[in-house]
Amino acid sequence: MAEFKKIKRSENYSEWYNNLVKDADLAEHSDVKGCMIIKPYGYAIWEKMQAELDRRFKETGHSNAYFPLFIPKSFFSKEASHVDGFAKECAVVTHYRLKVDENTKQIVIDPEAKLEEELIIRPTSETIIWNSYRNWIKSYRDLPILINQWANVVRWEMRTRLFLRTTEFLWQEGHTAHATADEAIKETEQMLDVYADFAENVMAVPVIKGVKTAKERFAGALETYCIEGLMQDGKALQMGTSHFLGQNFAKAFDVKYLTKENKQEFVWATSWGVSTRLMGALIMSHSDDEGLVLPPKLAPFQVVIIPIAKKEDERILVLEKVNLYVKALRAKNISVKIDDRENISPGYKFAEYELKGVPVRIAIGPRDVQNETVEVARRDTKEKQVMSASDLDHKIEHLLEQIQKNIYQKALDFREEYITTVNTWDEFIDALENKTGFVSAHWDETSETEEKIKEKTKATIRCIPLNNHQENGKCIFSGNPSTQRVLFAKAY
Amino acid sequence: MAEFKKIKRSENYSEWYNNLVKDADLAEHSDVKGCMIIKPYGYAIWEKMQAELDRRFKETGHSNAYFPLFIPKSFFSKEASHVDGFAKECAVVTHYRLKVDENTKQIVIDPEAKLEEELIIRPTSETIIWNSYRNWIKSYRDLPILINQWANVVRWEMRTRLFLRTTEFLWQEGHTAHATADEAIKETEQMLDVYADFAENVMAVPVIKGVKTAKERFAGALETYCIEGLMQDGKALQMGTSHFLGQNFAKAFDVKYLTKENKQEFVWATSWGVSTRLMGALIMSHSDDEGLVLPPKLAPFQVVIIPIAKKEDERILVLEKVNLYVKALRAKNISVKIDDRENISPGYKFAEYELKGVPVRIAIGPRDVQNETVEVARRDTKEKQVMSASDLDHKIEHLLEQIQKNIYQKALDFREEYITTVNTWDEFIDALENKTGFVSAHWDETSETEEKIKEKTKATIRCIPLNNHQENGKCIFSGNPSTQRVLFAKAY
Repeated sequence: MAEFKKIKRSENYSEWYNNLVKDADLAEHSDVKGCMIIKPYGYAIWEKMQAELDRRFKETGHSNAYFPLFIPKSFFSKEASHVDGFAKECAVVTHYRLKVDENTKQIVIDPEAKLEEELIIRPTSETIIWNSYRNWIKSYRDLPILINQWANVVRWEMRTRLFLRTTEFLWQEGHTAHATADEAIKETEQMLDVYADFAENVMAVPVIKGVKTAKERFAGALETYCIEGLMQDGKALQMGTSHFLGQNFAKAFDVKYLTKENKQEFVWATSWGVSTRLMGALIMSHSDDEGLVLPPKLAPFQVVIIPIAKKEDERILVLEKVNLYVKALRAKNISVKIDDRENISPGYKFAEYELKGVPVRIAIGPRDVQNETVEVARRDTKEKQVMSASDLDHKIEHLLEQIQKNIYQKALDFREEYITTVNTWDEFIDALENKTGFVSAHWDETSETEEKIKEKTKATIRCIPLNNHQENGKCIFSGNPSTQRVLFAKAY
Repeated sequence: MAEFKKIKRSENYSEWYNNLVKDADLAEHSDVKGCMIIKPYGYAIWEKMQAELDRRFKETGHSNAYFPLFIPKSFFSKEASHVDGFAKECAVVTHYRLKVDENTKQIVIDPEAKLEEELIIRPTSETIIWNSYRNWIKSYRDLPILINQWANVVRWEMRTRLFLRTTEFLWQEGHTAHATADEAIKETEQMLDVYADFAENVMAVPVIKGVKTAKERFAGALETYCIEGLMQDGKALQMGTSHFLGQNFAKAFDVKYLTKENKQEFVWATSWGVSTRLMGALIMSHSDDEGLVLPPKLAPFQVVIIPIAKKEDERILVLEKVNLYVKALRAKNISVKIDDRENISPGYKFAEYELKGVPVRIAIGPRDVQNETVEVARRDTKEKQVMSASDLDHKIEHLLEQIQKNIYQKALDFREEYITTVNTWDEFIDALENKTGFVSAHWDETSETEEKIKEKTKATIRCIPLNNHQENGKCIFSGNPSTQRVLFAKAY
């Protein structure tokens, strides 16, 4: 932990991030290339994310289910653009047994246990799920199907970063089936709203809702909706996607239903997902040079209480008071940790909980007991204040709400400051290179232009914002006419 | 659904089970050999199991974390008995990319994307976890480590059955590290108690706690503790195991700690797990020829209310009343579903919820509204009774408790009846063949005898019960002296 403060965001953002993830005990690289280990403190945050998302999925009528990890290669090949999108990053199971080599005595693959058909570790589950939906859907009475799955997926990545891009990651994937295109589009949009609500009101990360360009669409989708966040280094991060899949998978897997009018029609599909990548977004949106800053709604514990006492009799007095406060706080559903380790100095503890992003720290010494006071420090602003302990539970409850709002507002102010509107190529380059952040510019709607801009600047079109203002203009690259601005940025 | 009643337990227990799992919408076979799809109703039960277990793990000081799906082959080979136990059922990843074959235009493995070292899909995670613990543990201050993981695992099975034995299954695996053997053994026993408490008080399945014989131990364990349940067909089912691993994995992965006395010592380990196999135990313990019987603590919804009305004005009156009752029931944290589908007959609905094992069914018609009554049917005993609706929430709350207890008692009475004490080989064979269930018999404590009994009868030693009564006797097979009886049974 003592290592952490050596690197500031301004010195090397990327190294700051890697160190923070490790030093705050969130995750680490494993000895399996590209795969991470999510440590208990990091996993506790992920569990809170899961609980909040899961509740929202259920409130919008979805149920959880579980489909196989393995996808037969032939399934995978049925939807042409889907296989194009994922073939280059698939882990493939070819054998199902090991044995001891008689000569070397080493453990080797048993060549006799070769699979007739190779199995792909799911990079996403559309194919295996739609193969099942064929049997589940006969008539309009079987629709809609509203299913979500919490699962691990594997996409073989050459360059990985903890949480942001790992070969194996955890996620949820919703897969719904509908009788009409209209209903499927409504579902796609509803789930985008669920994600945006979660990002803003739970993670305290403001997001821009939009649709991807054709080039950036999910492999197999007719339309990909997304939420885009902005990190403190001015790079964008795609935080969640919701896809309108049209009838592509229904056609690939022959999933038809009998309409009320007694006709056979292909079923309409959506899929939508967020992953442990959100952990990266959370860390990069709020944290500072002292460590993590966690929004109260996702902090594994919201309050840490540190009793400060040198003599045993003081210690007993202080702890008695601490226990009273803890009881009152817990009665308000505030999660509290008491750190009464005796061999560790208060200063060391303060730094540790700063590093771990605990929203509120309360210190109580013998004088506080006498005066009925406590020292309260908030992590987000680093303000410290001695206050009367009367009504402490209400005060802390209120403070946690304030912190949640403040963290969001700070991120929002930053984001708003970092959307730059430009009208020429020079302004575009200048904004990307010198200011960073989102750049709002006219584009001629061709993939060629999009590709060339990416080649020259590394910036991509993050999204075409929903309900985008329509205005005539000229593409900053080609000069061709355009009807609206889109958001460019360098991105994770 | 209408198909279900065709097979009775007494006719063909195994077919009854398979049909029930499918017809009650719990799970189905996928097109991937040996892998199942857990459907929403089945998954909702599993989620309730997870929540109850997870709470107990956290209350006993454990945290969740997540380790990679992949295990390098070399890790796997480090603990000799471990690899012996699992090598024959490993799914092996050999490649990380697919491509389009230029001649056939088919999707094939890219031979250039061959892994240098093969990766095993985890069948259990001791090796990958202890490889990490080596870096996490330096001194006694870092101990104990109390971690649990919820994950999917793969063991290549030739003959599979839904929930009971599948190639991929879901489970939790606890992996703890301790400074002393004594502390590790206490942990092993504590987690066995957690499992037994969960099985009996949540699943309503009585279990026998014991230890496995050397032959039946987990690959790499010094002692395997288990809970064993008895299914309605007289076969035993291992429902959970808790392993004392000694220093085997610490030695294989070189995990040492500095003691308070400044010495380097190997760390002591435990691991413990339960899986979706518990779904099989739940189904087989309580269900009957009409369908599932679920204990209230695991039912996705505990009460279903079916309004019965033919005319629209009656319907409005009835639904008004139903909504009042639902509100009162939900205020008591009772989960309620209202089924007001109009095109489906009450009789059909009754059968459907019987099949799905809903603990309490309430029917309300216009006359009930007039009389302030409801018709209440309990799933476990099939008793039906018209009762006054006053205080309905208290009555139902009490009824659910009664049902939970009754289901347990019924299973316990059955289990007690099916433990047969025998003293000779003939009695042993007779009990196994004609009565089934557990058979309590003397055994000479050799693996040879154990193996021969298994060959001749298919019965295995399920466990040596904890705190087993010590008495002198003669082995039923060899006639050699024995100091205690052990429990034999045919098992899943």
